[in-house]
Amino acid sequence: MEAYFDNSATTRVSDRVLDIVVKTMREDYGNPSAKHRMGVRAERYVKEAAAKIAKTLKVQEKEILFTSGGTESDNLALIGCALANERRGKHLITTSVEHPAVYQPLCFLESLGFEITILPVDGDGHISIEELKAAVRKDTTLVSVMYVNNEVGAVEPIAEIAAAIHEKNPDTLLHVDAIQGYGKFRIYPKREGIDLLAVSGHKLHAPKGVGFLYIDSRVKIRPILFGGGQQKGMRSGTINVPGIAGLGEASVEAYENFDGKIAGMIRLKDLITDGVTELPGVTVNSKKGNAGAPHIVSISVEGVRSEVLLHALEDRGIYVSSGSACSSNHPGISGTLKGIGLPEPLLDATIRVSLCENNTEEEAQYFLENFRELVPQLRRFTRK
Amino acid sequence: MEAYFDNSATTRVSDRVLDIVVKTMREDYGNPSAKHRMGVRAERYVKEAAAKIAKTLKVQEKEILFTSGGTESDNLALIGCALANERRGKHLITTSVEHPAVYQPLCFLESLGFEITILPVDGDGHISIEELKAAVRKDTTLVSVMYVNNEVGAVEPIAEIAAAIHEKNPDTLLHVDAIQGYGKFRIYPKREGIDLLAVSGHKLHAPKGVGFLYIDSRVKIRPILFGGGQQKGMRSGTINVPGIAGLGEASVEAYENFDGKIAGMIRLKDLITDGVTELPGVTVNSKKGNAGAPHIVSISVEGVRSEVLLHALEDRGIYVSSGSACSSNHPGISGTLKGIGLPEPLLDATIRVSLCENNTEEEAQYFLENFRELVPQLRRFTRK
Repeated sequence: MEAYFDNSATTRVSDRVLDIVVKTMREDYGNPSAKHRMGVRAERYVKEAAAKIAKTLKVQEKEILFTSGGTESDNLALIGCALANERRGKHLITTSVEHPAVYQPLCFLESLGFEITILPVDGDGHISIEELKAAVRKDTTLVSVMYVNNEVGAVEPIAEIAAAIHEKNPDTLLHVDAIQGYGKFRIYPKREGIDLLAVSGHKLHAPKGVGFLYIDSRVKIRPILFGGGQQKGMRSGTINVPGIAGLGEASVEAYENFDGKIAGMIRLKDLITDGVTELPGVTVNSKKGNAGAPHIVSISVEGVRSEVLLHALEDRGIYVSSGSACSSNHPGISGTLKGIGLPEPLLDATIRVSLCENNTEEEAQYFLENFRELVPQLRRFTRK
Repeated sequence: MEAYFDNSATTRVSDRVLDIVVKTMREDYGNPSAKHRMGVRAERYVKEAAAKIAKTLKVQEKEILFTSGGTESDNLALIGCALANERRGKHLITTSVEHPAVYQPLCFLESLGFEITILPVDGDGHISIEELKAAVRKDTTLVSVMYVNNEVGAVEPIAEIAAAIHEKNPDTLLHVDAIQGYGKFRIYPKREGIDLLAVSGHKLHAPKGVGFLYIDSRVKIRPILFGGGQQKGMRSGTINVPGIAGLGEASVEAYENFDGKIAGMIRLKDLITDGVTELPGVTVNSKKGNAGAPHIVSISVEGVRSEVLLHALEDRGIYVSSGSACSSNHPGISGTLKGIGLPEPLLDATIRVSLCENNTEEEAQYFLENFRELVPQLRRFTRK
C-alpha cells in the first residue's frame, strides 16, 4: 500500500486538469498574442480561467494576474508594491513564521534601504493584534501575513488583522500569502480587507509552474519582469495557457462539494492526531477540527530524528515531509517551529503529514499502524 | 486544409514531450525538494533534462538554469549580471532590433542609472563589427545580441561579435537571446564566446511556461526572484518538473536528424520566397538558403495591410503573424522592420511566415495558391 501525505509540498494533477492541459498543448496550442483564431481561442482559455478564479474569490477577473507560481506571486506583491509606493514610506511589516518566498524578498528590500519589522507569534502561531497595531506607522506601506502556516497549519485571523492595520493606517496594504490557504478556506478578499493574495497552482492539483496574484484594482504596483507587455504590462512573457487553463479548472474543482471535502480532511486530521498522541512522547503542533487548517498535522516525536522517521515511513510506502525549519540568515526569522516555541530537541524531531481530499481513512489507518510500530523501534536504535 | 505557419510565435507540443509531461504530472509528480523517493524521482527528471540540454550545447549540466520562459531568462541575464557587476561599470550595449524581453529590462536598468548604447543594423539586420568595437569601453560589463532575429530571421555573426568584444575588453560579458536560434542552429557557447544564452521551451515543441538560461560557470550573476533557494539559490520557486522534463526531451528531439530537418525547412522557405515574389510589389525581407534562419520568411506586400492579409489567410485555414514592429517608448529602439530600413508604407504591410520541421510542401503550396489569389483581390479592395 502507498499513502501520499505530502500534499502541502505538491499534489498530483487531477483528471479534469490534465484534460484541459493536454487539450491546450495539442489542439488549442496558439499564442494568445497572435491575431488569428488560434490566438483568439488560446486567449479564451485564459479569460475563462481568470473568470473561474475570480468567482471563487468574489473579485473581478481583471484583478487576477497569472504568474509562474507562488514564489513569483509573493515576489511581485512585495517588491512590486514596496517600490511602487516608496514615496509614501519605506517601512514594511511581517511575521516570524512566513515562508522564504515572503521573507527573502523582504530581505532583498531591506538591502535596498527598507525597514522591516518582524512580529513574533505565540505558541499557536498567531501574531498579537495589539503588537501589530503598535507596529503600523504612517510610513508603513505594506504588511505581509500568511493565511495558513505551511509547517503547522496555524490559521491567521486575517479579517481581524486587516481591520487593525486599516484602523491605524488606511493606506497600508495587506498582502496575504495564501499558498496553503486557497482551496482549503473560502477566502473573500473584499470582505476580509485583503489587498493582495498569492496562490500557487501545484498545491491544488494544477500543474507546477503556474500561480496567480490577486491585486485589488486600487493597488499601486509595478512589474518585476519586463518584456512584451503581456497581461497589461504587469507580467511580460508568453502566457502559459495550459498551466493557466489547468489552474482555472483546479480552482473550480477545489470549491466543488467544498464542505464535504473539508469535513473529510478534518476527520482524517483528527484521526491521525488522536492516533499518534496515544504514544508517549508524541505531541501534535496543529489544532484539531476547525481551529487549524484541515490538511496539516505537525507531529513531534521525542527521541526520533525526523529524517530517520521519514525514511522509515517511506520504506512502507508512506510519504511525509520533515518539518524542520527552513534555514535563514535573517536573525528575526526563526522558522515556524522555533517561532511557536517548540523546545530545541524537538525542532529536528518533527514531521508534517499533509492531506488532500483524495486521501482515505484506510490510508490514515495504514499510517497509524506503521507509525505506532516504527516509533518505539526507532527510539530503541536512537538510544544505543 | 489547415497550415500553421506561426511557429515562431509558439509551437504544438510534440508526442514525446507530451508523454513525459503527463507522466510527471500523474505518476512521478513529487516535489524535487522532498526528501523521500517521490522527491528523488522528480529530481532525477530535472537532472536528466539539464544533462540533455547541456549535451546539445557542449556545456556542463550545472551551467543550465531553468526559468519560467524566455522572458525570465533574458531578464535574469540582463538585470542579474548588470547588478552583480555594477562595481566594474554601468555601461551596457545592445542592438536596435532586439526583442522587448531584452530591451525592456535594459530600459529598467537605464532607470537605475545604467547607460545603454544601442547599435543600429544594416539592411540585412546585422550590426557593424567596427561600430561594436568602438562602443565597447572599460566600464562595459555586458553586451546583448540576439542569435536569430524574430521578425526577419537575420542571423548575427555571434562568434565574430564575441571575438570583437573580448579583444576590446576581456571582462565584458556577452548575452545571447537565442529564443529563435536554439534548435535551428548548432550553438556551442564555449566555442563561440557566449557567456549567457536564453532559450524558451514553447518555441521548440516543449510546453509554455518553461525555459532555460545557460550561464557560464565563471559569470557573476545574482537572482531576481527570492525564496526557498531552489537551483542553488539562483531561481527560487518549486521546480517545474513537467515543464523541465518536457524541455529536456524537446532539446533532444530538436537535434535529432538535424541536418535533414533544417534542409527541409530551408527548402520550404525558399519555395515560399520564390513563390510570393513572383507577384509584383511583393518583397521578402529574409535571406534564402543558409544566409538566413531556416524557418522565417518576412514578406512585404505593397498596398495590402498586414492584418487584412492575415485574416484573409486565416479564413483559408492558414495561420501567419503580422510582422509589424513592437511598439517601444525608447527612441533608440525601432523594431526590426524600421531598423533594417523598410520604407514606411511597408511597415504595416508585412507578414511573417514561420515554419517548423513538421510543415509540408503541400502546406507551402496551399499557402502560395491562396496568397497569389488573395493579394490581387485585397489590393483591389484597398484601392477603392
